[in-house]
Amino acid sequence: MSGNRPTLEAVAARAGVSRATVSRVVNGGAGVRETLRERVHRAVAELGYVPNQAARTLVTRRTGAVAVVIAEPESRVFSDPFFARQLRGISGALAAADTQLVLLYVADREDYPRIGRFLAGGHVDGALMFSLHRDDPLPGMAAEAGLPVVYGGRPGWPGAAAEPGLLYVDTDNRAGAELAVRHLLGRGRRRIGHIAGPLDQTSAVDRLAGYRAALAAGGAAGDAGDAGGGGASYGGPGDPEPGHPGPGRPELVAEGDFTPAGGERAMAELLARAPALDAVFAASDLMATGALRTLRAHGRRVPDDVAVVGYDDLEPATWTEPPLTTVHQDVEGMGTSMARMLLHRLGGGPERQDPVVTTPRLVVRESG
Amino acid sequence: MSGNRPTLEAVAARAGVSRATVSRVVNGGAGVRETLRERVHRAVAELGYVPNQAARTLVTRRTGAVAVVIAEPESRVFSDPFFARQLRGISGALAAADTQLVLLYVADREDYPRIGRFLAGGHVDGALMFSLHRDDPLPGMAAEAGLPVVYGGRPGWPGAAAEPGLLYVDTDNRAGAELAVRHLLGRGRRRIGHIAGPLDQTSAVDRLAGYRAALAAGGAAGDAGDAGGGGASYGGPGDPEPGHPGPGRPELVAEGDFTPAGGERAMAELLARAPALDAVFAASDLMATGALRTLRAHGRRVPDDVAVVGYDDLEPATWTEPPLTTVHQDVEGMGTSMARMLLHRLGGGPERQDPVVTTPRLVVRESG
Repeated sequence: MSGNRPTLEAVAARAGVSRATVSRVVNGGAGVRETLRERVHRAVAELGYVPNQAARTLVTRRTGAVAVVIAEPESRVFSDPFFARQLRGISGALAAADTQLVLLYVADREDYPRIGRFLAGGHVDGALMFSLHRDDPLPGMAAEAGLPVVYGGRPGWPGAAAEPGLLYVDTDNRAGAELAVRHLLGRGRRRIGHIAGPLDQTSAVDRLAGYRAALAAGGAAGDAGDAGGGGASYGGPGDPEPGHPGPGRPELVAEGDFTPAGGERAMAELLARAPALDAVFAASDLMATGALRTLRAHGRRVPDDVAVVGYDDLEPATWTEPPLTTVHQDVEGMGTSMARMLLHRLGGGPERQDPVVTTPRLVVRESG
Repeated sequence: MSGNRPTLEAVAARAGVSRATVSRVVNGGAGVRETLRERVHRAVAELGYVPNQAARTLVTRRTGAVAVVIAEPESRVFSDPFFARQLRGISGALAAADTQLVLLYVADREDYPRIGRFLAGGHVDGALMFSLHRDDPLPGMAAEAGLPVVYGGRPGWPGAAAEPGLLYVDTDNRAGAELAVRHLLGRGRRRIGHIAGPLDQTSAVDRLAGYRAALAAGGAAGDAGDAGGGGASYGGPGDPEPGHPGPGRPELVAEGDFTPAGGERAMAELLARAPALDAVFAASDLMATGALRTLRAHGRRVPDDVAVVGYDDLEPATWTEPPLTTVHQDVEGMGTSMARMLLHRLGGGPERQDPVVTTPRLVVRESG
């Protein structure tokens, strides 16, 4: 407990590896090459390093608690049914293992250092993190704290895809978006816009990729047609993304933020750029509800003039007028999987677990 | 850190007092008689007792974290905007003091022992608790853990009113209900029903008392009139509650659960008992939205046939058709006050703070 304990940094310097690598090794070594692992073990032995978690375990054993960290402010956490539903799955699985759920959310970027201190303070045995944005400091904080983590949604930081041992649960967002857009094409829609989620999140990026791929395969390229060429264009001459309509043909894509208000604004932007648009695929049901409001305000009938397809298939999809055709993902089940994966890890299960990626399906209602 | 440390129980036995009294004394002594305090101090000294919190403070100082415990399952925490709004106030005040908010909720009665362990585990410096139900074990757990607590809503356990030093923030629920019912009487309504909240919560009990008092003062006694006398009657011959219409005249009160579905059911019950009812005061806006649905389904026009008044004045009050006349309470401000009161206590401010009780006001919209 003295202040002179050798630090993680000292071990990293002695072993000639990164702090993240040291952290991974002292927490089980999943995904670290044998040679590196040996160097770290040697440095740990030479310096007499005791990792935080081990120190904690010596004193108190387990805390019996797991943090759920949502990288969103409470205004979103408490208004987007996605979070409540995922938490229902998590709560059930943690309760079954008599493990306390401790919910932390990020109201502001200034909250991060404090959350990092809490995560490093020995108050929880592991963490479930979701709705991470690009460059989110949370994964680094968890690594420094030696805290096992399971992510909700494929982590998007540079190099994440190649990191072995990374635990996450996701749905195949690209396949889901393709289902939605192919459905619209199959119904004869040809000017299909997309309301994307925030493009610093992989779910939004993957759904955009699915939209592009379906359009490219279907021949209808989301051509703005009557658009003046204004508005932001994602991708461009240097962008090899499949399905992109190519330079000179602006995509019918507007970025929202997964909220109803963001969907309203994005829909208005799409209508201004392409008044003759005949369908829109929104990357979440909440954004679709906003799109419906904008379409109504502009006198467009749904689905007669403009077909609308959402994503998630949570309660709001059935409350709208007309009810939403949408892509169903098993949000509660994903929460359950995340919790079980972490419990398995904490319980000393095999180091190597594979990410879980669920398959979405289309639910056809009246909006498109 | 050994298992042989003298326990709180041992101190209580030696001093001949309750565990709660020992806990209160070792945490500052607020509200404990001088003679008892001395007995506890002597027992503590003789046994060499170190309270959990002190042990914790010796080792780690403060954790810098505060628990917010909501005694409701996530289905309510995440669907009732009351909680989000109160948390917004709490978050802001805690963040300003660089204190981490740790949210715990109670999905099931079986969760209590685990929550008790977490609260006693030295992971937080204090707790804010709200939506407690009668006989809720949380206050006792906090007392045993030596954890300072501020309650949201007047605690309702037996003897709570007489307990000095009890910290809580509330709104004057009785006065708010009186405002609502007097408004309806002033508009000429004479058969006024009440959809109560769960009567194991003081907010619901106090609003019911306000409804009764206003009816008694106004002369219209919520007489069921054409009712057949069926249905539950709160109070009765042995009940001295002011405003009760007295034996033989069943009250037009149905108990809901603060949810829209509960409001729907309660409204149907009231209509069945008193088809000629001309107004209803619901103890929450969410229950009022349910009442509106039932009234619509029964072909009643609002406010023409039946006037509806809610309570809370959160977002749903403005979304309904027609928008709700309701009782406004400053929910976010109450959250801010709770957090500040606890921070003051944790920061070593004067032991004695008075509960904060805010004054509600009526907001007249179109429903009544």
